[in-house]
Amino acid sequence: MKREINIGLIGYGTVGSGVYKVLESKQEYFTKRIGINYRIKYVCDVRKEIKEQIDTNKTKFTENYKDIIKDETIDIVVELIGGIEPAKTIILEAIKNKKNVVTANKALLSLHWLEIYEAAKQNNVNVLFEASVAGAIPILDSLKYNLSANNISAIYGIINGTCNYILTRMSKENIKFKEALKSAQQKGFAEADPTYDIEGFDSQQKLTLLILLGFGSFINREKILCEGISKVSLDDIIFGKELDFEMKLLAIAKLKNNKIEARVHPTFINKKSVLASVSYEDNAVFVEGDLINRMTFHGKGAGSLPTASAVISDIFEIARLTNNNNFYNNIISNYEVLDKDEIESEYYFHFSVVDKPGVLAKITSVLGANNISISQVIQKQSDNNQYVPIIMLTHLAKEKNVNESIKIINKLDCVKKETIIYRVEKF
Amino acid sequence: MKREINIGLIGYGTVGSGVYKVLESKQEYFTKRIGINYRIKYVCDVRKEIKEQIDTNKTKFTENYKDIIKDETIDIVVELIGGIEPAKTIILEAIKNKKNVVTANKALLSLHWLEIYEAAKQNNVNVLFEASVAGAIPILDSLKYNLSANNISAIYGIINGTCNYILTRMSKENIKFKEALKSAQQKGFAEADPTYDIEGFDSQQKLTLLILLGFGSFINREKILCEGISKVSLDDIIFGKELDFEMKLLAIAKLKNNKIEARVHPTFINKKSVLASVSYEDNAVFVEGDLINRMTFHGKGAGSLPTASAVISDIFEIARLTNNNNFYNNIISNYEVLDKDEIESEYYFHFSVVDKPGVLAKITSVLGANNISISQVIQKQSDNNQYVPIIMLTHLAKEKNVNESIKIINKLDCVKKETIIYRVEKF
Repeated sequence: MKREINIGLIGYGTVGSGVYKVLESKQEYFTKRIGINYRIKYVCDVRKEIKEQIDTNKTKFTENYKDIIKDETIDIVVELIGGIEPAKTIILEAIKNKKNVVTANKALLSLHWLEIYEAAKQNNVNVLFEASVAGAIPILDSLKYNLSANNISAIYGIINGTCNYILTRMSKENIKFKEALKSAQQKGFAEADPTYDIEGFDSQQKLTLLILLGFGSFINREKILCEGISKVSLDDIIFGKELDFEMKLLAIAKLKNNKIEARVHPTFINKKSVLASVSYEDNAVFVEGDLINRMTFHGKGAGSLPTASAVISDIFEIARLTNNNNFYNNIISNYEVLDKDEIESEYYFHFSVVDKPGVLAKITSVLGANNISISQVIQKQSDNNQYVPIIMLTHLAKEKNVNESIKIINKLDCVKKETIIYRVEKF
Repeated sequence: MKREINIGLIGYGTVGSGVYKVLESKQEYFTKRIGINYRIKYVCDVRKEIKEQIDTNKTKFTENYKDIIKDETIDIVVELIGGIEPAKTIILEAIKNKKNVVTANKALLSLHWLEIYEAAKQNNVNVLFEASVAGAIPILDSLKYNLSANNISAIYGIINGTCNYILTRMSKENIKFKEALKSAQQKGFAEADPTYDIEGFDSQQKLTLLILLGFGSFINREKILCEGISKVSLDDIIFGKELDFEMKLLAIAKLKNNKIEARVHPTFINKKSVLASVSYEDNAVFVEGDLINRMTFHGKGAGSLPTASAVISDIFEIARLTNNNNFYNNIISNYEVLDKDEIESEYYFHFSVVDKPGVLAKITSVLGANNISISQVIQKQSDNNQYVPIIMLTHLAKEKNVNESIKIINKLDCVKKETIIYRVEKF
């Protein structure tokens, strides 16, 4: 077992509380599966009442972040308060005290990355921030590591869930911007003051970080053309659909004439494009590179648990690096394989039968006797007038029951060819 | 600068030659961008004539893999010959000689992972194999690292490009299996003997590795239910479409009653499902986890360069781990941001005009004078009969020219409201 990693968590809001709860509840699993041994030594929040949510037998609660910075045993400072100050001071002090930093603070990084980067380099610590762009989607790590052999030529992102939710509702339900915004606010997908999201500033900040990892260049976020969606009218969404377009707020970065073309704006894209199907609060990032050609990452861009997933993966990454731990996913159990007979699925049957009364009754009685319930039946025209195809969909059924029924059905006089079976999956 | 990493490359086929060429041609870029200094010290292939393709001033050519294993300066052995033997012997000998291994050998790993894993653990080296599943798509690393905070509950993959190409052609063009297979063979998406792909064995092997990284369990690949696509008839694809289904060869793994349900078979999925839009030779993997909810990775699953992208990222990963190198993507240049005026896009204009003759001529002459060429014009019915909306799409135009034209057009007497402008992106 590697030595224990001590964590100081600063900011116990939506994301911070998610990180705390997951790290607490899964400690045993993580230690077994990933070989990471850790302790949340501090939780820091300016709201005193947070203390009641913390198990103070294991974790100290403090209102003063300096308690964490001063503690020499702390390996990782997790900053989840957001905004420029005091986050900037906290992060820089942590770095100077040789602590690794995990943050989701796009507002800060998109302005002050160079200063933080230089400090981290000088002090030989890591500052990781996967959670700052597209929540759970590992787009920053992918650009940094997995796609690092590529020269990236373009990045297109749907990286603001609020805007995508509003545009999706407008498009799917023919409702106006204001109505969609109100509904987004009611469902918690938009803030009471939605300016930061709907005017594109959130996407603009995140695009700075995508450019940093994708193109190795830090640009001033104010140089990114930025238009929001507050003026988008339903009329244009409808006109666009007639032209086979969907409207999305895209964050775009391309290399062009050895300069970076960077912009955030409502954009018409072909409805068959891979980004057109990214709906509601989902995020997605589409990347073009010389080796990969094109790749798309699609998932949850915000929320307590998806963002915690990214924060925790950064914590583990630092644990891995600082312990020089080349861990595999440990083999934690020899899960047995479910017996094939026990597989459950919905099924598609294609029976080839003679066109006589009573045939359907015979087939359905066999299925019924084997506990297979039917959701849909379609009798097709026959090509050759010899056999008639009957298509049947089932509700969830067991593979074993299906196999036994079909064996019986195939022997019926009225069934003229072996029945064709496909499984239908919903996910 | 970190010390040089010495690489021995065994197998100079489609993938091996891609890896060699990329590592050779991008050496300067990689050193600058990623801080990795490396040398391909050997290329090994049993075909003597390969030597002519190697720059022997820099790289030794050998027909005997033992030259690489014996060389104490070699850090990483890249095995790209495939198949069980001699690949297994090579990998185990490399491990015993304390060399890290990068491979794409799913056939071998899906049978002998446990033996290789134990040997690697004992000798404290890495065996990485990102390229063995879904080519360029970083699904294994994502399961291992980025999604490691999750308990994965299900994985659905389209992980065989040959089958997906054939099924896509059948579905889109209403052609039969045999015709689609023949065309796939002609285009290089299917082997002369396609059995391994079309009967699902390739997907079965890859699913073993997805289960290993996703569920931390190594299962015998023969326990995975496996049905191929060779018997899929066009009739059923057509019947399926009437039910809003697309057919895909899916590799599925789910946790069910604390067992792993694992299967590969042609599957009907809803045409609106995110995997239904994965077309032709593309691969995609859909993952469900307790924190991320759901996430999809979509990209190129095979081919020389996409696979090389994954192999090289594994090489860099080992360089990073063995050098204890917490590198960032280095900032390699302060790319300038392209001036907003220089942005080029296609545009959507929504003019609100009076319904009189000559209006269109006035607008188009302004656009023409500013070098903006029109691809489509639609005159809409007006809601209020006061103004008429005219929708216009352009070919590629410069932002500057658009802004200047629209400023002039907005001042025309016949134009009654500020023109609405959206950019149209194709990618």
